[in-house]
Amino acid sequence: MRELIMTDKKPKEISQDGSFKRQTNRFTKAFGQNEGELPVEKDRYRLLWSPACPWAHRAVIVRSLLGLEDAISLGTASPMRPAIGRVDWEFSLDEKNVDPILGIQYVSEVYLNADPDYDGRPTVPVMVDLKDKKAVNNDYPRLTNYYELAWKEFHKEDAPDLYPEEHRETIDTLNEEIFHDINNGVYKCGFAQSQEAYEESFDRLFAKLDYLEDWLSDRRFLHGDFVTDSDVRLYTTLARFDAAYYNGFNTNRNLIREMPNLWAYARDLYQTPGFGDTTDFDAIKRHYHLSITINADKTETKILPKGPDLSLWEKPHGREHLSSRQGKFRRQGE
Amino acid sequence: MRELIMTDKKPKEISQDGSFKRQTNRFTKAFGQNEGELPVEKDRYRLLWSPACPWAHRAVIVRSLLGLEDAISLGTASPMRPAIGRVDWEFSLDEKNVDPILGIQYVSEVYLNADPDYDGRPTVPVMVDLKDKKAVNNDYPRLTNYYELAWKEFHKEDAPDLYPEEHRETIDTLNEEIFHDINNGVYKCGFAQSQEAYEESFDRLFAKLDYLEDWLSDRRFLHGDFVTDSDVRLYTTLARFDAAYYNGFNTNRNLIREMPNLWAYARDLYQTPGFGDTTDFDAIKRHYHLSITINADKTETKILPKGPDLSLWEKPHGREHLSSRQGKFRRQGE
Repeated sequence: MRELIMTDKKPKEISQDGSFKRQTNRFTKAFGQNEGELPVEKDRYRLLWSPACPWAHRAVIVRSLLGLEDAISLGTASPMRPAIGRVDWEFSLDEKNVDPILGIQYVSEVYLNADPDYDGRPTVPVMVDLKDKKAVNNDYPRLTNYYELAWKEFHKEDAPDLYPEEHRETIDTLNEEIFHDINNGVYKCGFAQSQEAYEESFDRLFAKLDYLEDWLSDRRFLHGDFVTDSDVRLYTTLARFDAAYYNGFNTNRNLIREMPNLWAYARDLYQTPGFGDTTDFDAIKRHYHLSITINADKTETKILPKGPDLSLWEKPHGREHLSSRQGKFRRQGE
Repeated sequence: MRELIMTDKKPKEISQDGSFKRQTNRFTKAFGQNEGELPVEKDRYRLLWSPACPWAHRAVIVRSLLGLEDAISLGTASPMRPAIGRVDWEFSLDEKNVDPILGIQYVSEVYLNADPDYDGRPTVPVMVDLKDKKAVNNDYPRLTNYYELAWKEFHKEDAPDLYPEEHRETIDTLNEEIFHDINNGVYKCGFAQSQEAYEESFDRLFAKLDYLEDWLSDRRFLHGDFVTDSDVRLYTTLARFDAAYYNGFNTNRNLIREMPNLWAYARDLYQTPGFGDTTDFDAIKRHYHLSITINADKTETKILPKGPDLSLWEKPHGREHLSSRQGKFRRQGE
């Protein structure tokens, strides 16, 4: 994620004022039953991710919470960028460095299958149609919502309602704020090419974290008693904050573990199946600290920081009393 | 401090196993009254330092605590390394980039005045004989002890006894441990060129910090009720830890402000004249984050991290009750 496509040495995604402007997604066709939409079919698609990437992680968490594992298979790219002179993700964790289902070595291949002229960054998450091995959707802002709504028929029994209809507007609004100030906010800090752009993003990031720290003082989750899509999105950034962003992206006003409510909230989620068991701190640390994507300018020996102490994530969170009832999830139709 | 003298691309101060071995000091003649020693004379020497450097900072703190300002003048080099293709310190904070007393632009000049073949790093602190502008002593391990003992006749009235005779052996022993595991320990983490060398230094650093965290639970200062030379030495590393080393040197098990006793102890010292008023966090941050000395491999825009929140250093420390009497200093002869 660190490397940007370069044109004449000026990265494509850096504006004149030195601020980072994330590329828009190329494959955004919706999943659904309507004409022109991507058909919702079991065993038709493969989701590609890397455990390092927060945008992909949110799709994997929701896939797990909803029990979509049987409907959508998962291909896992290494957290280490390949040393091939371009930004890509590689299946170097698999035998012969090839995804066993798609038979590809690099994620870029499914993008080029779909569009031979594709010249953006090949990103994860991406949904790949197994019929022709083409990327069909890399729309991370909406992918979890498709899983939650369009893919309902393949949810497991008793799957939670992560996107309840009457809260949808407030979820969307908060998601948008979390995206700009936090999820992408840390990247705007880390990739800024001017002190001013960096400081503006830094201030917005911590202002929003302060706001949420206060917000979570009397709510177990962002929208009340139940985990929603917003919690998934906030969690993926919180899980990477102390281990990677604080150092690598200069988001160093304070650690998340120094914000009592956010820290206990993050542990509450981490200790919930679907969250902690899809969080690979080792992959996160290796990606952000060792991979050329963050250290492209470093030619010397790369050192993997030994800290922080990640066993702290297992500590009791003590937030059960903030719920008015048992359980963390709202069942669908409840 | 970050750049090392390179020979055939292998830094001189890096061993075969990738560990950092700090150069020995070249000018170590003692101050004293004996034949062959450096004479102790008012207005004869100038101390050169940079507020970024912990080794120089300890000399400046002791000079202040003892009131040696009237006897030894002070020249201040910029925290920003000059962009001249070699490691040096520059008087770029002074008018015309020249130290007003010595008339030199670079610290290296006094080293070369003393030895035209000098090929080590020109370091601060260094005591310069004003008669011939030659470096006469850069022996930071012993310089504060010379100030404390050999320079006694120039101490201010009621100067504290930072190196009391009956504690000298335990002070020396602890100073040696603090040097290897903490003062130089953070550099061994930051400069390591192998994962193994880094991890060994990381473990020793935090083991010693854990030990001192416990040690300081029922003692106000390292050797009891009074500030000693050991406290000065520990302080200079603690003051740089959260603002620079945690990020820049990968010493990220935890921040100092997450260790309650060490953190309150550091603030207790910071709030003592001689400590806080010689601690320049802005210089420390700019040196470690912006200067080529730490980012020699970074060709892109340099960003100064906005955090951490340094106003926390002003918070009450609440450690007065750990002293059995008033005051932080033991008077000489007491």
